[in-house]
Amino acid sequence: MRPLDSLLILDLSRVLACPFASMILAELGATVIKVEQPGAGDETRSFEPQLARDSAYYFACNRSKQSVTVNFRKPEGQAIVRELAAQADVLVENFPVGTLARSGLDYAALKALNPRLVYVSCTGFGQTGPYAHKKGYDTVFQAMGGIMSLTGERGGAPVKPGLPVADLGSGLWVAIAILASLAGRGKTGTGCRVDFSMLDGQVSLLTLAAARYFALGEVPARLGTEHPGRVPSATFKCRDGRYAHVTASDQHWGPLCEALDLAQWGSDARFAGNALRVEFRDEVMRGLTNAIGGLARAELIARLDAAEVPVGPVNDVAEILNDPHVAARGLVGEFEYPGVGQFRGLGLPYKFEGYDDPRVGAPPALGEHTESVLSARLGYSFERIAGLRAQKVI
Amino acid sequence: MRPLDSLLILDLSRVLACPFASMILAELGATVIKVEQPGAGDETRSFEPQLARDSAYYFACNRSKQSVTVNFRKPEGQAIVRELAAQADVLVENFPVGTLARSGLDYAALKALNPRLVYVSCTGFGQTGPYAHKKGYDTVFQAMGGIMSLTGERGGAPVKPGLPVADLGSGLWVAIAILASLAGRGKTGTGCRVDFSMLDGQVSLLTLAAARYFALGEVPARLGTEHPGRVPSATFKCRDGRYAHVTASDQHWGPLCEALDLAQWGSDARFAGNALRVEFRDEVMRGLTNAIGGLARAELIARLDAAEVPVGPVNDVAEILNDPHVAARGLVGEFEYPGVGQFRGLGLPYKFEGYDDPRVGAPPALGEHTESVLSARLGYSFERIAGLRAQKVI
Repeated sequence: MRPLDSLLILDLSRVLACPFASMILAELGATVIKVEQPGAGDETRSFEPQLARDSAYYFACNRSKQSVTVNFRKPEGQAIVRELAAQADVLVENFPVGTLARSGLDYAALKALNPRLVYVSCTGFGQTGPYAHKKGYDTVFQAMGGIMSLTGERGGAPVKPGLPVADLGSGLWVAIAILASLAGRGKTGTGCRVDFSMLDGQVSLLTLAAARYFALGEVPARLGTEHPGRVPSATFKCRDGRYAHVTASDQHWGPLCEALDLAQWGSDARFAGNALRVEFRDEVMRGLTNAIGGLARAELIARLDAAEVPVGPVNDVAEILNDPHVAARGLVGEFEYPGVGQFRGLGLPYKFEGYDDPRVGAPPALGEHTESVLSARLGYSFERIAGLRAQKVI
Repeated sequence: MRPLDSLLILDLSRVLACPFASMILAELGATVIKVEQPGAGDETRSFEPQLARDSAYYFACNRSKQSVTVNFRKPEGQAIVRELAAQADVLVENFPVGTLARSGLDYAALKALNPRLVYVSCTGFGQTGPYAHKKGYDTVFQAMGGIMSLTGERGGAPVKPGLPVADLGSGLWVAIAILASLAGRGKTGTGCRVDFSMLDGQVSLLTLAAARYFALGEVPARLGTEHPGRVPSATFKCRDGRYAHVTASDQHWGPLCEALDLAQWGSDARFAGNALRVEFRDEVMRGLTNAIGGLARAELIARLDAAEVPVGPVNDVAEILNDPHVAARGLVGEFEYPGVGQFRGLGLPYKFEGYDDPRVGAPPALGEHTESVLSARLGYSFERIAGLRAQKVI
C-alpha cells in the first residue's frame, strides 16, 4: 500500500517541471494517465540521449505512468479528455495561457462536468501579469529569478546552477499545490484551480537573499563557494587536486583547527566567533586554504568526520551515484524497458513506516495504455477504438 | 477559506529546510505550532541581519506560525509535547538520529497516543545507512549531491549555486511528504512515519544529469551558463555590461537570427537543427556573442520578446523583487512586527480559484503563543502555566 493509491491524475503536461511533479505522485501510488499527441508524444521522447525510440531524458521524468495518445485538437479527442477528466481527481497542464480554453478543456468547462476536480495550470509567468504571454524556459526563469546573479566567482560573470533548478523546483511546487488542493477537497468536497507560475516559483526561493535585501537594502553578490554570513563555509582544493566543502559553526571551529593542526587558531581571539571570522574572512580563508591544500581529500574528510565538523567531497555525478550511502538508502532503482533492457532511475527520497516505500517503475511507451484506458475506464468498444485510430484521433 | 484550514502541525524543527516546509503549509492555511527552546529559541533568531530581537533570516522561514516555548529535556516539557502531539495531524522534526527517542518523543511513543499522527523526520543523511550520524549542512549536501560539480565555468573550479538549494529543495520535499501522508490517512484513517534525508533529496534532483550517466556512462561537466544538449542556451554580455540569457529551440532559431541581423545564419545549413548547432557550438557561440555584445540589454530583450524567442535579463535580487510582473502577481507581501514595523516577505507562487490566495503573515515572537496554546488547547490553568514558567519548563 502506498499513500496515494486510488488517486487518479490526468496529466496533459510535457517536458520537465510538471512531468516531474506527476512522476513523484505516481511513485507515491497515484495512477497517472499521461495524455500525449499521437505520433510524436511528449517532445522529450526525441531528446538526447536516445534509447530505443525514447530517451533517457523522457525516462527521468515519466516513470510509473500510463500513456494514452489523444489528439485534442479534434472534437472527438476533446471528448475523450473530457470523459477522463470527469473521472479524475486531478488534471495538470502546462500549455500556454488560453490554449486549453480553445479546446473546451479549461477549468470552467471541466468543473461543470466534475466539481471535485483539482485543476493545476503551470505556465512560465502565470495566467496574469504583463509577462503572461512571454516565452520562457528553465534558464530564463533562473536568469530572471535572481539565482544566476548569485552564482559564480567573486567579481566574475554569472554562472548557471548545474541543474535545471527552476524546472525541478517548479515540479516540487506543483506537487505541493496538487496535494494541498486535495487536502482542501477532503474538507469541502469540491475541487479548485491553481495558477502556478514558474518565475514566481523561482522567486519564492530567494528567501534569505531577499531577506538581506529587505532588511539592509543590500543586493547580494556572487561569492564563489563562500557564504555571505558564515566563515568558514567554502570549497577547498586538496593536495590531490580534488575539492571538498567545509562549513563550520562556532561549535565546530575549535575541532576544525585541531584537526588541521592549526590548534593555535582555535584559541586565537581574532577568530573567536563567526562575526569576527566574517570580519577577518580573507585571513581565515588563506590559512585554511594552505592547511587543506596539504592534505589529500580522503585524509581531510576522515579527519573532519572524526572531529564531527561538517565536510563533504565535491562529488561528480558518477561518484555520488556509486556512493555506498546512496546504495544503502536504495536511491538508485531499476526498471525494464523494451528494446533497452534494465535501466536505472533515481527514486524518491522517502522511507515510510506505515506504507510501502516508493518504487522506481517503468515509463510507458507512447500510447501503451490507449486501448486499455479507453476500454476499461470509458467503456469504449473495440470497434469504436479502431475507428478513432483510423481517424488519427488517438 | 484556504486549502489547509483545520490542519494542525506541531513543528519541532529549526533553521531552514523544515521551517520553510511548515511555513508553506501555514500560508496554505494550516495552524503551525512551532515548539522552541525557552531562552534562545530557533537559532536563526540570532543570525544576521538582526531586526529587533529577531532576524530577517528567521522571518523568511517562520511567517504565519505560532511559537510555544517548551524545554523538552525536562519531563514536564516532554509531557506538554506529548499532549500537543495527541491532538496534532502532523509532527515534523529535524533532530539528529535518536535524539527524540531519548525524550520519549519518537514515532513509536507518539503513535501509541495518536495513531492518526503523520510524523516526518528530516535529517542530513536519513535514519539508516553508513552516514546516518554524519554532520551536514546545505553546503555539504550540495557538494556531495553532485550539483556543485556541475556548476562553474568550463574547466574552472566548482561553484556553489547562489541559494541554499539543498535546504530549499528539502523544504519542498518535506511539504510533499506531509501532504501525501495526509492523503493516505484520508483513506486508511491512520498516520505514518517518513524518514527523509536531505542528501537523498538533493541526489533525487540529479534527474537529467543522472540520465546522461545512466545512458552513456558520461560524467557531466561544468559548462558555465551553457547547456550540454542545446545550442544556443547561454548567458551573453551586452554592450552596457549587463547580462541576458537566451535559449532557442529549433523553432526559435530563424527568428533569433533575424532579430540579431544574422539572417544569413538562419538559413545556413551548418546550423539547421539543434544537433548540428551542438556540433558547431563554438562557432555559433562566437557569432552570437559578437552580435549580442553590440546591443544594450534592453534593446536585446525588446527584439527577442518581439520575435517570441525565450530571453531574460540576469536580474540581481533588487531588480527581480522590484520587477513590475512580480508586483502584478502580488508576490511580495508585508507584515507588521513589533519593534520593526512593516517588513516584506516573499509569498507562495500560487493563485487559487476556489480558495483565498495565500497571504504573507507575521512570524511569531519567541513564545508569543505559549500561554494561549497551553490554556486553550491543553486546558492548563493560569497557576499551572505560571508554575511551569517558574521551573523554566516553558
